[in-house]
Amino acid sequence: MGKKNKDFVEKITSMEDDFGQWYTDVVKQAELVDYGPVRGTMIIKPYGFAIWENIQGEFDRQFKETGHTNVYFPLFIPESMLQKEKDHIEGFAPEVAWVTHGGDEELEERIVVRPTSEVLFGEYYSKNIHSYRDLPKLYNQWANVVRWEKTTRPFLRSSEFLWQEGHTCHATKEEAEAETNQMLNVYADICENFLAIPVLKGKKTEKEKFAGAEYTLTIESLMHDGRALQSGTSHYLGTGFAEAFDIQYLDKGGKQQYVHQTSWGVSTRIMGALIMVHGDNRGLVVPPRVAPTQAMIVPIAQHKEGVLDKAYKLRDQLKDIVRVNIDTSDKMPGWKFNEYEMKGIPIRIEMGPRDIEKNQVVLVRRDTGEKDFVPMDELQERLPALLEEIQQNLYDKAFAHRKEMTSTAKTMDEFKQTLEEKGGFIKAMWCGKLECEEKIKEETSATSRCIPFEQEQIADTCVCCGEEAKEMVYWSKAY
Amino acid sequence: MGKKNKDFVEKITSMEDDFGQWYTDVVKQAELVDYGPVRGTMIIKPYGFAIWENIQGEFDRQFKETGHTNVYFPLFIPESMLQKEKDHIEGFAPEVAWVTHGGDEELEERIVVRPTSEVLFGEYYSKNIHSYRDLPKLYNQWANVVRWEKTTRPFLRSSEFLWQEGHTCHATKEEAEAETNQMLNVYADICENFLAIPVLKGKKTEKEKFAGAEYTLTIESLMHDGRALQSGTSHYLGTGFAEAFDIQYLDKGGKQQYVHQTSWGVSTRIMGALIMVHGDNRGLVVPPRVAPTQAMIVPIAQHKEGVLDKAYKLRDQLKDIVRVNIDTSDKMPGWKFNEYEMKGIPIRIEMGPRDIEKNQVVLVRRDTGEKDFVPMDELQERLPALLEEIQQNLYDKAFAHRKEMTSTAKTMDEFKQTLEEKGGFIKAMWCGKLECEEKIKEETSATSRCIPFEQEQIADTCVCCGEEAKEMVYWSKAY
Ligand SMILES: [Zn+2]
Ligand SMILES: [Zn+2]
Repeated sequence: MGKKNKDFVEKITSMEDDFGQWYTDVVKQAELVDYGPVRGTMIIKPYGFAIWENIQGEFDRQFKETGHTNVYFPLFIPESMLQKEKDHIEGFAPEVAWVTHGGDEELEERIVVRPTSEVLFGEYYSKNIHSYRDLPKLYNQWANVVRWEKTTRPFLRSSEFLWQEGHTCHATKEEAEAETNQMLNVYADICENFLAIPVLKGKKTEKEKFAGAEYTLTIESLMHDGRALQSGTSHYLGTGFAEAFDIQYLDKGGKQQYVHQTSWGVSTRIMGALIMVHGDNRGLVVPPRVAPTQAMIVPIAQHKEGVLDKAYKLRDQLKDIVRVNIDTSDKMPGWKFNEYEMKGIPIRIEMGPRDIEKNQVVLVRRDTGEKDFVPMDELQERLPALLEEIQQNLYDKAFAHRKEMTSTAKTMDEFKQTLEEKGGFIKAMWCGKLECEEKIKEETSATSRCIPFEQEQIADTCVCCGEEAKEMVYWSKAY
Repeated sequence: MGKKNKDFVEKITSMEDDFGQWYTDVVKQAELVDYGPVRGTMIIKPYGFAIWENIQGEFDRQFKETGHTNVYFPLFIPESMLQKEKDHIEGFAPEVAWVTHGGDEELEERIVVRPTSEVLFGEYYSKNIHSYRDLPKLYNQWANVVRWEKTTRPFLRSSEFLWQEGHTCHATKEEAEAETNQMLNVYADICENFLAIPVLKGKKTEKEKFAGAEYTLTIESLMHDGRALQSGTSHYLGTGFAEAFDIQYLDKGGKQQYVHQTSWGVSTRIMGALIMVHGDNRGLVVPPRVAPTQAMIVPIAQHKEGVLDKAYKLRDQLKDIVRVNIDTSDKMPGWKFNEYEMKGIPIRIEMGPRDIEKNQVVLVRRDTGEKDFVPMDELQERLPALLEEIQQNLYDKAFAHRKEMTSTAKTMDEFKQTLEEKGGFIKAMWCGKLECEEKIKEETSATSRCIPFEQEQIADTCVCCGEEAKEMVYWSKAY
């Protein structure tokens, strides 16, 4: 290994040695986030935010395409309002931040910094929905929310995070359930086709569902270390909030009816998935569709006559075709190679005096490290094709990894052994009882990730109690 | 006046009768905002947010064009950190919201919900800037901020509002001052050319500058009722925060230097300006460039054969040329006319069976109320031209209004009389002393809006004390 590789070994911990440390190193070295001064808060740095902006843009586009409009609801919720839905307050009270003073004065009523906004939307809908003509309401907001977490990690679990939360009202259960499904599919589509992250689609168990929902649908992805990450959830709320907040409409027959609601959210946690699904020991790997910079031009021997000119010219030729950038700083090419590998930029374009002579460049793929000499006139065609190839390869790799890391278990012994030796997803049958779910968690520290839509009959009996099995569940240790 | 007009008279207060009530009525009837449950907070509804998104998009585009990158810093600031810059904490402490508890536990140190983020950026820059190679830093963030205001009004003064805050660091005073200027010009450009709001550019007095700045540049606009609105500010911070937070860099000569900083912000207040500059007694008037819907098709007698078909066909023909929408609900055309006038949509396209026969439509301008019969084949050409005409007309009207509402005063009597009888901007000379500025405010309730870059020598002496005048100042009652 040359010096270039050695530099890296010093820079970040290898993921095989300590995956947690590898994650922290990548997040820091790729300049994604920094720690905020209040425990568990994060500063999203320019590169991290540029990736988030692209993710946001794609979600926003698809939300609008499916008929949703953006709104902005307040950060602050009066304590009494949060308490209106009993399950909801029980779920969230232990982890909220409380505002008690405004300026010098103590407030008459304590205020909650929103951990999620169901109650605010509930109160609003109650005042603004009167008739079937007012339905459906299809709202979304991009916002910051606060959850006072005990242990925190950038993107994965932070006291404050950014997200979108959709809140919709419908006349019927059928419509609301169709919406719940539709938004899960939007999430899955973006994860798979934009972020190159394969996901499992399914339903959460009663234990793991959102506080206040009838049921929660989820997409679950598998990280490189074999732990799962919940990557987006879509809740069918039924009429629970509608009853608590009195959201009724006059139907076509002149009868008062409660609306059926949904809510759904994706957060900056998805950045954690991006890092842990695609990253490697050289740093971050960003799929081309989401990459702020898809190709980085690094001039070689740039002090030599004509090199910089030619490099800028190339940048200008390519800039309408791919998101291209150029580094003409006086740092060494080796430093630049490392830097942009660490940042996971999909393609590096090297170009020195000898390449210019031959009217070619060197293309280096971030995902495989492969080098290729390409005639300059072919670049306009080759680059977009190569980006697509990288995108597909990242998806395929992640898919193969998940496949390899998915096992089945028919007994608890098998369950424990597989989890310990291999990790990953374990498919096992479940009787549907909370006590088995809790026992599995206690004994293995795996949680139920989802009851997948695509069921398989692995056995007839519950992996835990041996009684009649109701459904197959994906279990895993999780972030 | 027909029934259509009468409906409106009942709907909103006329601005001549009660401008404040007119504002509140428009904000509510045009469905821009609603009140949040915590005092002074606002819910930005779909139409209000769509306008804000367009404004945001244009600012964001120009920030990026001028080399800035977006980041996201935390909502929470530890009390001790806010106290590091003395003037800053004095300015903001009376109006901050305090978080004192997380879950069930009392916090060891109280937390401030950010009223602005200079200190967070200061702390970050202190850790991340080491050498002249790290400069400049050109960061912006879009965020919510909280100021615990005593009296609040939607958009104009709310406990929580949305804004962008730019925070930059530079090696030299010259560079930082150039940045301060540049961003003021970006603000002015967007106000004038995108929002059709003419602005005055100038400097704030010492009394009115940002807490912690060396000086503040401002753009000031004039509302329909003759009161001013500060529409964006750009601060040169000097080295004050750099000294408080120890932000130093090693210059090319190997010497430690403090960085020179700027910060600049525009908020949802600008929505208030948009309403109060262009609105009229029929409601909101949205300039075409910022309008989410630029033209609304209202089919007439839509139950008749072929009308809806033709209307949808027209919508499809136009949708790549202008932002067009269609209302095919079963509401009466008159109701629709009122509704879209209230919402300030620039052009209404009416189209009934007789129009279809003649292969024409009726175009109605929101700004002037003018009607015009236009052959359908000419629409693709006429619509963009008409939108430009409306945009220009709105600017011209606002400019003429400001001109008419700008007076000069050489004595306090003249000052008071003009302000009382006419309102608007008063240009008057000032000696530069705080006591005169305070006296003018006390006696007239006008504040200094700015010391304009374009100075005029109206008199040789201060309008208040009669001593030698230093500069001309724009004074006005303000929001
Ligand atoms: Zn069981
Ligand atoms: Zn004076």
